Amino acid sequence: MLSGYLFKNIRTTQRLLRNFSSDAKFFKVRKPSRKQNKLGLEKEKRRKNKLQSTQFFYIAARARSPYQEVEVVSNNRKAPLQTQRKSIAPRFEKKTRQKISDYLKQMATPEIEAQLAPLRAAVKEYGDLIRDLKAKQAPKIDIDKAVVELKARKKLLEETEIALAPKEASFDRLKLEDLLKRRFFYDQSFAIYGGVTGLYDFGPMGCALKANMLQQWRKHFILEEGMLEVDCTSLTPEPVLKASGHVDRFADWMVKDTKNGECFRADHLIKNSIEKLMNVSKIDKKVSAEIKKDGEDVLARLEGFDDKDMHEVITRFKFKSPITGNDLTEPIAFNLMFPTQIGPTGDFKAFLRPETAQGIFVNFKRLLEFNQGKLPFAAAQIGLGFRNEISPRQGLIRVREFTMCEIEHFVDPEDKRFPKFAKVADEKLVLFSACNQLDGAPAREVAIGEAVANKTVANETLGYYMARCHQFLMKVGIDGRRLRFRQHLSNEMAHYAQDCWDAEILTSYGWIECVGNADRACYDLQQHYKATNVKLVAEKKLPEPVDVDIVEAQANMALLGKKYKKEAKKIQTALQQLTSEQVTAIEAELVAKQLYNLDINGEKFELAPDLVNIKKYSKKIHVQEITPSVIEPSYGIGRIMYALLEHSFRQREGDEQRTFLAFKPLVAPIKCSILPISANDTLVPVMDAVKEELSHYELSYKVDDSSGTIGRRYARTDEIGIPFGITVDFESGKTTPYTVTIRHAETMSQIRLEVSELGRLISDLVSGRQQWSDAQAKYPKFEASAE
Amino acid sequence: MLSGYLFKNIRTTQRLLRNFSSDAKFFKVRKPSRKQNKLGLEKEKRRKNKLQSTQFFYIAARARSPYQEVEVVSNNRKAPLQTQRKSIAPRFEKKTRQKISDYLKQMATPEIEAQLAPLRAAVKEYGDLIRDLKAKQAPKIDIDKAVVELKARKKLLEETEIALAPKEASFDRLKLEDLLKRRFFYDQSFAIYGGVTGLYDFGPMGCALKANMLQQWRKHFILEEGMLEVDCTSLTPEPVLKASGHVDRFADWMVKDTKNGECFRADHLIKNSIEKLMNVSKIDKKVSAEIKKDGEDVLARLEGFDDKDMHEVITRFKFKSPITGNDLTEPIAFNLMFPTQIGPTGDFKAFLRPETAQGIFVNFKRLLEFNQGKLPFAAAQIGLGFRNEISPRQGLIRVREFTMCEIEHFVDPEDKRFPKFAKVADEKLVLFSACNQLDGAPAREVAIGEAVANKTVANETLGYYMARCHQFLMKVGIDGRRLRFRQHLSNEMAHYAQDCWDAEILTSYGWIECVGNADRACYDLQQHYKATNVKLVAEKKLPEPVDVDIVEAQANMALLGKKYKKEAKKIQTALQQLTSEQVTAIEAELVAKQLYNLDINGEKFELAPDLVNIKKYSKKIHVQEITPSVIEPSYGIGRIMYALLEHSFRQREGDEQRTFLAFKPLVAPIKCSILPISANDTLVPVMDAVKEELSHYELSYKVDDSSGTIGRRYARTDEIGIPFGITVDFESGKTTPYTVTIRHAETMSQIRLEVSELGRLISDLVSGRQQWSDAQAKYPKFEASAE
Repeated sequence: MLSGYLFKNIRTTQRLLRNFSSDAKFFKVRKPSRKQNKLGLEKEKRRKNKLQSTQFFYIAARARSPYQEVEVVSNNRKAPLQTQRKSIAPRFEKKTRQKISDYLKQMATPEIEAQLAPLRAAVKEYGDLIRDLKAKQAPKIDIDKAVVELKARKKLLEETEIALAPKEASFDRLKLEDLLKRRFFYDQSFAIYGGVTGLYDFGPMGCALKANMLQQWRKHFILEEGMLEVDCTSLTPEPVLKASGHVDRFADWMVKDTKNGECFRADHLIKNSIEKLMNVSKIDKKVSAEIKKDGEDVLARLEGFDDKDMHEVITRFKFKSPITGNDLTEPIAFNLMFPTQIGPTGDFKAFLRPETAQGIFVNFKRLLEFNQGKLPFAAAQIGLGFRNEISPRQGLIRVREFTMCEIEHFVDPEDKRFPKFAKVADEKLVLFSACNQLDGAPAREVAIGEAVANKTVANETLGYYMARCHQFLMKVGIDGRRLRFRQHLSNEMAHYAQDCWDAEILTSYGWIECVGNADRACYDLQQHYKATNVKLVAEKKLPEPVDVDIVEAQANMALLGKKYKKEAKKIQTALQQLTSEQVTAIEAELVAKQLYNLDINGEKFELAPDLVNIKKYSKKIHVQEITPSVIEPSYGIGRIMYALLEHSFRQREGDEQRTFLAFKPLVAPIKCSILPISANDTLVPVMDAVKEELSHYELSYKVDDSSGTIGRRYARTDEIGIPFGITVDFESGKTTPYTVTIRHAETMSQIRLEVSELGRLISDLVSGRQQWSDAQAKYPKFEASAE
Repeated sequence: MLSGYLFKNIRTTQRLLRNFSSDAKFFKVRKPSRKQNKLGLEKEKRRKNKLQSTQFFYIAARARSPYQEVEVVSNNRKAPLQTQRKSIAPRFEKKTRQKISDYLKQMATPEIEAQLAPLRAAVKEYGDLIRDLKAKQAPKIDIDKAVVELKARKKLLEETEIALAPKEASFDRLKLEDLLKRRFFYDQSFAIYGGVTGLYDFGPMGCALKANMLQQWRKHFILEEGMLEVDCTSLTPEPVLKASGHVDRFADWMVKDTKNGECFRADHLIKNSIEKLMNVSKIDKKVSAEIKKDGEDVLARLEGFDDKDMHEVITRFKFKSPITGNDLTEPIAFNLMFPTQIGPTGDFKAFLRPETAQGIFVNFKRLLEFNQGKLPFAAAQIGLGFRNEISPRQGLIRVREFTMCEIEHFVDPEDKRFPKFAKVADEKLVLFSACNQLDGAPAREVAIGEAVANKTVANETLGYYMARCHQFLMKVGIDGRRLRFRQHLSNEMAHYAQDCWDAEILTSYGWIECVGNADRACYDLQQHYKATNVKLVAEKKLPEPVDVDIVEAQANMALLGKKYKKEAKKIQTALQQLTSEQVTAIEAELVAKQLYNLDINGEKFELAPDLVNIKKYSKKIHVQEITPSVIEPSYGIGRIMYALLEHSFRQREGDEQRTFLAFKPLVAPIKCSILPISANDTLVPVMDAVKEELSHYELSYKVDDSSGTIGRRYARTDEIGIPFGITVDFESGKTTPYTVTIRHAETMSQIRLEVSELGRLISDLVSGRQQWSDAQAKYPKFEASAE
């Protein structure tokens, strides 16, 4: 059957050459060209191409990073053609070894590390010896002998690394990207117009995969946990995002080329420029050790830099535009929200929401009412988010428009226990706590119950959602060995956040944050209360009524109006929002100084005693008003989907050209293929019976009755991740009841069974009620004649 | 059990008063107030409030339009409070009669019309007689007698109208809106910030209803028809929408107050101003018959008016701003797309997509390839659309952000037959053809096969999608008597469209366009080809190879470059896109005049013979390149959902306060309620068994174990449209197997059955495999003790 494959490859190459011709323009214009402005997208394209060339340069200078190299090739969009031209790496060629090293650094279990440690020590021993011999100016023969031994030890280390390496360490992103593009899982948006970075369109397979993931998410969270789902608008008025802090703080620092205005993300520019400097220093010994150390220091601290720090570094190192060599401006804050206006007047400013959460917060009162006033409850939203990234790369990992799923769990701040926590307490998660990060210790597998008990994780509710997050990611097919929960360090968290654990998934881009699980305290509701003066609180019944002493500051509106005109209302509101303690303090100051300076967001208002009446009284209260705490799990669906594609990607052993996607049947875009062994009419009644059986169980299928060999058709359906192939052969119709074979794509093993048993079996396999091994145990094995 | 209801109403009033206090600000600021600008939304709010007051004024002046009156009250947000204050109309009070009249005008069947015709004639007879008597100055006694007889005849007509009126004609929008708001199906977005017109948030029930509708849409179209689903971005670069025509033509005419800049949609302003004039004319006899006739004439032709026509009318009638009485500007085109920019430079202009269709067109090549190069195929997309309406009202009917489902069916322009057409040919649709509209004839029920055969509907593919559209709308629960397909008149259609039928649904806002079914020919693909020079064609194999004579105009780039510099490329592209006929014409002109003026979108380029080489040759071709025609069904989900809510809304006979939603179980947000008759512990094992049974069949349920009476709890679950109520009573656990009752919300009838039969029965009822009457026939009836 190999001939089928060779044929396929030639055909594929031809098709690729033909298909990509429409994009050829895009590939060719690597150097900015004045002739390319026909479509109006030229500027953006030029900027992009420049960035690519730049990156390429950096990469060339640090060619030791194998992933980066792959990434650049793919960015330059030569990927599909090159795949065809190059001969394929045997497992494991040199480049692959570096990937394995990289994976091992991230994924090595303590057992693997234990096996490698003596080998590493052995290498180091000879490294040290040689350095020592050279320093002593020992005879050349001694040094040469030591070098031979060093090489042998190095080889042993490498070979052991390879032997211990997980298979997925040899992952080839180039091949995955070729498959995803060719079978239109997703691809760059508006490609015939030159494309837009950071925007992707999903084709039929990507769309179905995404829809299935969302359906599982809805089932796993909204239905199983009885959450209140809402669907709010993307368009969001400015005051809402002002209150949430996004208008002021949702920004990246950017520097501009002083001459041509080209923009660079400041932290990326510094990182790339320093890395370039370091690489140069390897060749050019004139770069002093001091500068090198300084650079390393900057890289280590870069995450915490503000604009002044970055400006200082750019000035001190004399960094210029990597494209033109021109000077750069000081860092400018660039807000990542897309601005627009609502209505025709142009003065109603709005943004596209950067997250779906705010829609839930502003509906808090309605949701609490829907829940009959009771806490805790959770609301959830599945929808679009928009972020105007400065220069997005990394495919689906960093995009400008994306689907996210967010949960806001509202809970009594003084009681964050979770009734169903016991159900998940024994669930083991890989936790990379802040402590472990600071100690340089690796992530550890811990039962979530233990982690909450010993306060590693702040509370039961947060712990419960982390466990459910883990379950969800496993359910859709993320590889558990490439998943960890990383706690935010205190300097990473917003000041109001009490704890935060990101579910990070290891991909060829490194560990990627795919889900955030944060305890945001009561920050969001309080901010919207401050902005609107609408109380966003729940009532908690007190065990028994209590008398409380109330101290209130009431504005004397008549006098206040005279003095402050239209500002009076604002002052009144500010006074209403004060706590009893604050009012008592004001009273003291009014008595002492006959004056109090009220500060409203930086504006000062002088208040004389006659403008404010301090009122004190006692009140019996039966309920306590509380602003709920918010636990927020937030899922980036595109990122999870990309990780899932990497983790599901396989190459057939012995024929690494033959790639496929081994999805969990639950999320596979199409569940079955129906393949008649030939176009013979005698097969038609069986085909019809199969279709009817599958439809009865609402199982999606794809008929491939094209003229290719059965092996070629299997390969084509394997590529789009169809888990089960139903083959109708000449035996099928010979007896009644009809029989067919089912082929399991991942293992290529086959069984034979009656058509009437198909629906239930495949339903069970899809839902996970049965595994393929169960089916193999129950039904006779079928030996395929050939693939 | 009525006491429960009275109690409920008092409670409801209290709750409403409490809940709406947060919105009170919004209700109270009807008159623009300078103090309201605290939240930054003041301007928009002021504009909105002004518009509301204005509308209220108009309405007051034409109080005969009952629907409008209802609408205004609801816009003023007094609705929920008022509902409680007013006593309820018995069926049918005076206001209701007008609604019935209105419905009858729209919905009357020929049979009803036949019954009413003699009564109408009888009324007219006496009307004419009285006019005649008055003209003759007949004795007062004769006139009085005739008036008594006229009144009697009018009464008979009205009573017959009421007797014949469909029940839904007494629909009360106020009550529906109260329910939808109270149970948070949907509500205005950002209400705590003052709200934004045209933006709505969906709460848990609205969200689930919408999700179920979308799921059915996906199943009905994408899965059953094997469509290619895509998911493209909302952000769309300007050149794409320039090519599609949206940048230049997707606009409404707007006039501005010359002094304060307030904006009005020009056609709405004219319509409202003329209607006001007409109403004044009823009172003020000084308004001449001539002006009245003129006004009527304008209203009739308004739809076809351009800016000049509208300006002429505004000038002639001296229309001013309805708010300030200031002069108005000439009509200005206001583009309805939301503008934004992509990336940090600010010079990459983009819009939020006004429709999802363009995302499919720009992916045509990928989709054709996915379909292995074969025509016909259909692609579909479910996603958001955005339109920056000038002053949206009418709730979900006219919004600024909405979910739409679009299909683009690509087909050979010369063969629009549809293989499965025979399956739907007998399906009867109510068609309101262009012919009928011009003849003043009513819509007619016609089999779609007949309509295609006699060319009323342009082709099989369009007809097939209309029939499928009809099936879908019936399936989700639209009332077939309030659905028609209206053909566009030739002046309504875009110049390229070949035929277009809107599915219109009758609601209290009148007939609303909810689905468009259009044959758009090959316009869209050609426009994107022109803009990008990327061929968007399919290949059609010719029966046998043919020789064709090709005449091409090739640019002499060396000379062209010298003369036109960077424009040369554009000229080359334009020359490449010419047809053989066009090139032949150019050649003739070049020979005759030694010069040809090439026109590229209005720009002229002089071409001398040396700049163009005319090349002629013969070529054997095996395939023909064709630009497919596009049949586009486009569904507005929000509008269909609103119509569905109106059509599902019911009031209990004898207790019209008790409103509920009779959804089809298929789309109902929650399928079952579980109601224990008391909090007694003995019921718990039965409750658990019921939950397990329902979960096994993946049926959503809501437990209401609150302390209210069973009747009150039924009413509460009826309100949110839960079709089946499972009651666990004291009989339930007495015997094994356990039994429970199921109550059908719409009819309030109940049956008793074993718990183990619940899942399958309700699944069947939800999917439509069984009807409630089937269940009633099979299981013993249960008489509820009381509701």
